[in-house]
Amino acid sequence: MSAGPSRRGLFAGLGATGAAGLATGGLAGHAVAEGTRRGDPALAPARRRVETAEGRPPALAAPTPAHVHVLALDLNGANASEVRRAAREVLQAWEDHVPALHEAGLSELTEGSPTQGLHPASLGVTTGVGASLLERAGLTAHRTEEMEDLPSFEADDLDPDHCDGDLLLHVGAEDPVVVSSAVDHLVGLAGDHARVRWALPGFQRSTAAARDPSATPRNLMGHIDGTVNPDPGEALFDTQVRAVHTEPDPAWMDGGTYVVVRRIRMLLDTWFSREVDQREAVIGRRVSDGAPLSGDREEDLPDLAARHEDGTPVIPEHAHIRLASPEATLGARMARRSFSYDLGWEAGGRRRAGLLFTAWQADPRRGFTAVQQSLDEGGDALNDYVRHEGSALFAVPATAPGRPHPLLDHL
Amino acid sequence: MSAGPSRRGLFAGLGATGAAGLATGGLAGHAVAEGTRRGDPALAPARRRVETAEGRPPALAAPTPAHVHVLALDLNGANASEVRRAAREVLQAWEDHVPALHEAGLSELTEGSPTQGLHPASLGVTTGVGASLLERAGLTAHRTEEMEDLPSFEADDLDPDHCDGDLLLHVGAEDPVVVSSAVDHLVGLAGDHARVRWALPGFQRSTAAARDPSATPRNLMGHIDGTVNPDPGEALFDTQVRAVHTEPDPAWMDGGTYVVVRRIRMLLDTWFSREVDQREAVIGRRVSDGAPLSGDREEDLPDLAARHEDGTPVIPEHAHIRLASPEATLGARMARRSFSYDLGWEAGGRRRAGLLFTAWQADPRRGFTAVQQSLDEGGDALNDYVRHEGSALFAVPATAPGRPHPLLDHL
Repeated sequence: MSAGPSRRGLFAGLGATGAAGLATGGLAGHAVAEGTRRGDPALAPARRRVETAEGRPPALAAPTPAHVHVLALDLNGANASEVRRAAREVLQAWEDHVPALHEAGLSELTEGSPTQGLHPASLGVTTGVGASLLERAGLTAHRTEEMEDLPSFEADDLDPDHCDGDLLLHVGAEDPVVVSSAVDHLVGLAGDHARVRWALPGFQRSTAAARDPSATPRNLMGHIDGTVNPDPGEALFDTQVRAVHTEPDPAWMDGGTYVVVRRIRMLLDTWFSREVDQREAVIGRRVSDGAPLSGDREEDLPDLAARHEDGTPVIPEHAHIRLASPEATLGARMARRSFSYDLGWEAGGRRRAGLLFTAWQADPRRGFTAVQQSLDEGGDALNDYVRHEGSALFAVPATAPGRPHPLLDHL
Repeated sequence: MSAGPSRRGLFAGLGATGAAGLATGGLAGHAVAEGTRRGDPALAPARRRVETAEGRPPALAAPTPAHVHVLALDLNGANASEVRRAAREVLQAWEDHVPALHEAGLSELTEGSPTQGLHPASLGVTTGVGASLLERAGLTAHRTEEMEDLPSFEADDLDPDHCDGDLLLHVGAEDPVVVSSAVDHLVGLAGDHARVRWALPGFQRSTAAARDPSATPRNLMGHIDGTVNPDPGEALFDTQVRAVHTEPDPAWMDGGTYVVVRRIRMLLDTWFSREVDQREAVIGRRVSDGAPLSGDREEDLPDLAARHEDGTPVIPEHAHIRLASPEATLGARMARRSFSYDLGWEAGGRRRAGLLFTAWQADPRRGFTAVQQSLDEGGDALNDYVRHEGSALFAVPATAPGRPHPLLDHL
């Protein structure tokens, strides 16, 4: 299919309505509220549907749902022709089912599903394409420059079993049963054409349990996570998140976005053995309210030049927010959607919990990679408390119900 | 400490108030509601506190919370004296912190916790004692007959890394961040005295996402799970769940309860490849509404004698509910609290999801074991779709804030 302003327009058109949703922390303008007239707005994410007609990835809908499951699948196939066929089968099956999943829910699609009796819970499914799919399918010419392999970073402790993959499946909802059963169904649709390479379920606080559902959530380290994040209503959102491609022709990724997924183990024992002021110095923000150490409120811009009377910087030299700042990264920005994960403990007693980090941007080289390299070069103090164990990069084309997946024409 | 009617009375006194809570699916009478006057009752579990003054295990509070994390810890110690000392330290630390956790929440106990800004979310902590603790601590005389090792069963595929343990930690709440951070804190309190042996986070649908929060929840197979379960308001509840011990003296478990924890992997691919009528024949209940195949509504008693015109039984010979019925098990009953778990997929593509099953009873030999043996003897059809990979049995003494843990006197 041809690329053009129409698809891009669909994606771009979300700015205004999405902004209203984020600003209030309530309903995104493009979501269909179900039952919001009866009761507390904290229930809305559990009851509404996500409407994806405008082509925006549901993974970027607002508010961020409480539960997510992110998976990578590898296609079965011994040669390029078989891989192309497998990719076609899986992508087509997902295309055929996802709009109905969003609209009606799993219990309307299949008999005997675990979601019978549940609200839609803002279920949203986003799919993506890994570089390995294009390479294996003989579609190297369609691999964009943005899809180049990520470099290695200081905090990397990567396990190949948690990295890469041919296809991304990203399923989010406000309820864990809705997520788990949708994932099961979608992987089932892939049948013998693909197998799961890695999977990671994640969560954040539920809207219902939040005293202020519009407040930025905290991660398992206790810190507010996601303060500096482009708002879909900002003028810059599109240029930060949306890719512009006129070649390779046809520009299958024009109007899409690139997502980096990182499995980041947190060394929580060590972290919580530190005093609060030490933890705050590592991040550069107060733990109580998320204000930068140079300011009074979460939304205050960090004053990187501020100094104590003795001349030491108020936001320490190796503080995470200093090194990740626009000043340090040539203005690199990305839309971050962070979740916690908690898989318990490993045999041997090691905690298996941390951050399921996703970064969505127009170009990972000027987004995630630029920020990570700045963190490395400056000696990010946070690196003592985290280990990046999984990493993957996927291309997420702009799609819309009723239009075929842009890659299907080439498979 | 001495056993006596006072402690037993505390536990028994819950029946009436607990019944009201269960019947409406809303607030248990012994819970402190927070903010229930403002808005939808579906928000109540996310906002209220659990009050444990009466000594009932919070794990048996109603309604069952959406999230749970069940862990077993092994004590460090090379001989009985060291094990006793470690047990004393851990139990005492938990005793010191749990009431405040219930009352005020983690964010009031520690600075910088992930639960800042969250409601109490019905957080409830229950602890238990494994037979291995008593054996290792030289307290074999205190091992009750009820704590004898479970026999093996047909569906067993047990992994020692997911079985047994010296201490149980069972943490539940309506919000996943509240659970995860409480678990982290409580394991942290154990310090060098213990290490986690196994851990399993579980969930069920959130109250906020349920169209009818009083409806019995479904498991990941899509079946309503927990219909036949004693109600705290029933006259028989105490005799089924509460242990009566006058010896060994001192009767540290008098008034307490015994919990069996099973990690049951579901073979979901196989299950969902079966037609609905096949699945219903395996369970003996309709998938749509949970009614027994002999009846019309979920609450109808199964008619095990009912036959089709051709003479075949309406509830098949090997159906799960026939073999688990009171008729087949000499009236064995237990309070079941089932959760789902979903840890994604294993390397190699095998699904890692199923049921985190907990059974609470006065005597496991006449509760869980009796039912499981009946299932085995009858050839439970469900055994083709499940594998029991983890198993543990713990004694949960009756405790109350302000009274020392009954085992502490012996450590």
